[in-house]
Amino acid sequence: MSQTFRIPLLVAALLSFSLLTTAQHSDAVDTAIVSKFRKEGFKNSQVMDILSMLTDMNGPRLTNSPGYKKAATYAKSTLEGWGVSRVYFDSFGEFGRGWFVKKFSLQAMEPAYFPVIGYPKAWSPGIKGTRAAEAVYLDVKTEEDLEKYKGKLKGKIVLFSLPIMPKPAFKPDATRLTDSTLLRMANAAASNRAPGSSRRYIAGPPEMLTYKKWRLCESEGALAVIEGSRGSYGTYYAQGATIPTDPATPAAQRFRPQAANAPEILPQLVVAAEHYNRMVRQLEKGLLVKLELTMETEFTKPEDGFNVIGEIEGSDKKDEVVMIGAHLDSWHSGTGTTDNGVGVAICMEAMRILTASGVQPSRSIRIGLWGGEEQGLFGSTGYVKKHLGERAADSVKLTTEGKKFSVYFNTDNGSGKWRGINMQGNENVRSMFREWLRPFEKDGSATLTLNNTGSTDHVPFDAIGLPGFQFITDPIEYFTRSWHSSMDMYERAVEADLKHNAVMLATFAWGAANREALVSRK
Amino acid sequence: MSQTFRIPLLVAALLSFSLLTTAQHSDAVDTAIVSKFRKEGFKNSQVMDILSMLTDMNGPRLTNSPGYKKAATYAKSTLEGWGVSRVYFDSFGEFGRGWFVKKFSLQAMEPAYFPVIGYPKAWSPGIKGTRAAEAVYLDVKTEEDLEKYKGKLKGKIVLFSLPIMPKPAFKPDATRLTDSTLLRMANAAASNRAPGSSRRYIAGPPEMLTYKKWRLCESEGALAVIEGSRGSYGTYYAQGATIPTDPATPAAQRFRPQAANAPEILPQLVVAAEHYNRMVRQLEKGLLVKLELTMETEFTKPEDGFNVIGEIEGSDKKDEVVMIGAHLDSWHSGTGTTDNGVGVAICMEAMRILTASGVQPSRSIRIGLWGGEEQGLFGSTGYVKKHLGERAADSVKLTTEGKKFSVYFNTDNGSGKWRGINMQGNENVRSMFREWLRPFEKDGSATLTLNNTGSTDHVPFDAIGLPGFQFITDPIEYFTRSWHSSMDMYERAVEADLKHNAVMLATFAWGAANREALVSRK
Repeated sequence: MSQTFRIPLLVAALLSFSLLTTAQHSDAVDTAIVSKFRKEGFKNSQVMDILSMLTDMNGPRLTNSPGYKKAATYAKSTLEGWGVSRVYFDSFGEFGRGWFVKKFSLQAMEPAYFPVIGYPKAWSPGIKGTRAAEAVYLDVKTEEDLEKYKGKLKGKIVLFSLPIMPKPAFKPDATRLTDSTLLRMANAAASNRAPGSSRRYIAGPPEMLTYKKWRLCESEGALAVIEGSRGSYGTYYAQGATIPTDPATPAAQRFRPQAANAPEILPQLVVAAEHYNRMVRQLEKGLLVKLELTMETEFTKPEDGFNVIGEIEGSDKKDEVVMIGAHLDSWHSGTGTTDNGVGVAICMEAMRILTASGVQPSRSIRIGLWGGEEQGLFGSTGYVKKHLGERAADSVKLTTEGKKFSVYFNTDNGSGKWRGINMQGNENVRSMFREWLRPFEKDGSATLTLNNTGSTDHVPFDAIGLPGFQFITDPIEYFTRSWHSSMDMYERAVEADLKHNAVMLATFAWGAANREALVSRK
Repeated sequence: MSQTFRIPLLVAALLSFSLLTTAQHSDAVDTAIVSKFRKEGFKNSQVMDILSMLTDMNGPRLTNSPGYKKAATYAKSTLEGWGVSRVYFDSFGEFGRGWFVKKFSLQAMEPAYFPVIGYPKAWSPGIKGTRAAEAVYLDVKTEEDLEKYKGKLKGKIVLFSLPIMPKPAFKPDATRLTDSTLLRMANAAASNRAPGSSRRYIAGPPEMLTYKKWRLCESEGALAVIEGSRGSYGTYYAQGATIPTDPATPAAQRFRPQAANAPEILPQLVVAAEHYNRMVRQLEKGLLVKLELTMETEFTKPEDGFNVIGEIEGSDKKDEVVMIGAHLDSWHSGTGTTDNGVGVAICMEAMRILTASGVQPSRSIRIGLWGGEEQGLFGSTGYVKKHLGERAADSVKLTTEGKKFSVYFNTDNGSGKWRGINMQGNENVRSMFREWLRPFEKDGSATLTLNNTGSTDHVPFDAIGLPGFQFITDPIEYFTRSWHSSMDMYERAVEADLKHNAVMLATFAWGAANREALVSRK
């Protein structure tokens, strides 16, 4: 249908009237306040400075590492500096050891010299000094293949994985959500998952052949194990070290590498695809590949993990809490910019906008910067359990605080512009969110979807029936380039989008803090 | 116009007749021979193996470096193994010193540890051992800015350039030529340049402020100079070292870094954008940036450069020569895959296809693998002057060999599929090329353009009036990612396209070697 659809005048008049009445109900946005937020968030923005402090200066922020603690200290003192009250480090319970890299260098000395791009996997042990060793490619596709490597791995650096060949990038790395995608989201049923939300953060169960490959490397006394990364152009993806585990082991008995009692493992590292594949091809041609590896890593003592909590105290309903949050921790090979320095920067900037605007909300607005998200949502889960409530069998037991808890807005989807919000299957919040989105419609942020998102820190809130939401976010380069990659650096952030998101978050927090009732539960 | 255009039957009959007569003239392709080439080039292809030998095993191939010599030796013995005759290293005259990196590692130790991605510029001196030093950002935008760094650079590692911020990639890195682009090329006038051909290989004249910055670093006794690279995701671009030169110096008196008598310069290196910019941001926040630099480079003695030459001897017209070629040398931070391992692999594979097909051409088919292309087309220029002729004032003096020289086909535009050929302003070759393209029309390789291309090794042939051509090539990731970059690795090659190009090159060489006359000059 290409003809313009014309609304008869009478209908238009009726619609105007209806819009007017809608705008007068309790969730109508206070346009004067939003103007203040906008002015503060665009004219005096500090979001990029906050981001640089979290990433360039103090990143990466692996939970319990020195970087995490420095960044937490920076966040605490910065929030306090803005007048945010009761800022403190709140233990979320046992986490395990911190870990960091002191020095890493991998050099391919023969048959052709090149410095190799790569990095240790988190919580991998290091090696002492610089060690020269030959590389062996573990070309194992069946159990029989294991035999040929017996007696051949001692002191060797094992190229463990099958090469992954990057392909030419005929699709752009950076995208924004199209109207078609947003429309599909707007029309989605509650059971749908949001795009990207089904990606798994936690490694799946181990496979038998992989387990046996690890065991072979261990029993033969390999010096170190290298895995080739996915990715291209020198970008690699390094996450937690592998604890070789028999697939029959029940999930509860599997060790995490940060655990104080985790079994000893081999030094493990990841190498960029182009460099890994080159070494494999050299070995496959029968050439001797000689490497020099420097890999000093250090563990800190096991201790509880902690979140950073702070709040803007409410006035008449100060015991009721509206919360915003993002995980402060990151993986370790980049600086954790889009995952999730931007989330923390948006939340901190929203708190700054709220305090700098000199307004006091009715309810308290609290910020939570979580630890241990990357290893399994530990920080937010611990916080919810400690403060808000827990699920016991079929029922939920909320604490006194939990009963007065209104809503949690999470930020963890990369650096793109927020285009609306996922209602997490909660139809009761539609008209409220519609009102709060109104000032951002002209910026392309107008979509409401019943979609669920998962895999991040609103889940523990949602799990005990408290409203927890994430915004619909333009992907930019999140899933293609930056998420968990070595190139999750400051350069991946989109300044204009972060400013927009911080103003929008302040508006949503303000709306929730000042509406008549707590946000409706599902 | 959406209706199918129907050719009346009579016109169709006339067209068929006209095609038939065209196909019978002297440039008609021998379809049986092309079938042989196709079978050999697709069923028994060795092009990826050759490419891997040139890049993974023996690359990079900076002129006169050990890598260049190893690759030349590999090419020579491989060509000989296929029965190519008179394969030899042919001096192209003075080139200068070879150079290679023995070890390189740059470590950012404070305020946050990370191993820095980067590499020395070619022909940069190294430093002894591993040196710890502070970084200083030379934030110089005017001459007055120079003053603030006096007395502050001694023993420091200078961050020399202004940061270049990569932007999100909303356009794909890899592309193929569209029909619209090909049509524009088909309709182009002779004076047009082909897309990409105007990109400069040789740095422009130095600027006064840049010159003064270099002089300041030298006079203050900096330890090393780092430039931030363009590029993103950890890819950087390292070319030849800068010899600081007063802009008033006449071009003929400027030194090249490979020259034996080049002045002493500071150690120079390039760092990936994300890592360079991070250090600049840290310094701009007032933090101390402590680096550890290991940079061992080695010069080899100055000597002549050489090309690799070989030929398939012709029968009745063996003194007349058809030539194919590509430059063997590369820059030094990747493995020189698309620039220009693929060109050499295509040429070598075409020679293999010709020899393996068991056919003898009428004229001799010669291969030339050039050195020194990246520093100024030295290998091909030297070859043309030594063997074929030279321009003196307004006239050209061809040698006896030059007078019998038919045509040169060059290969140096990355790994994409050949979509036709640039006629280099020579209208006389149109119907000949149209015939030779005929077997490849169905593969999308049918375009003829009068366009000129420049900046590579057919230019010296063209310059003395000998026909020299380059093919129209799909860009894939050439200009966006691989050209002169650290990620010009084997992964950037497109196997199907290289096979296609090798068969096409064999066909063109065969056509030129067996047509009645030498290829028409302009």
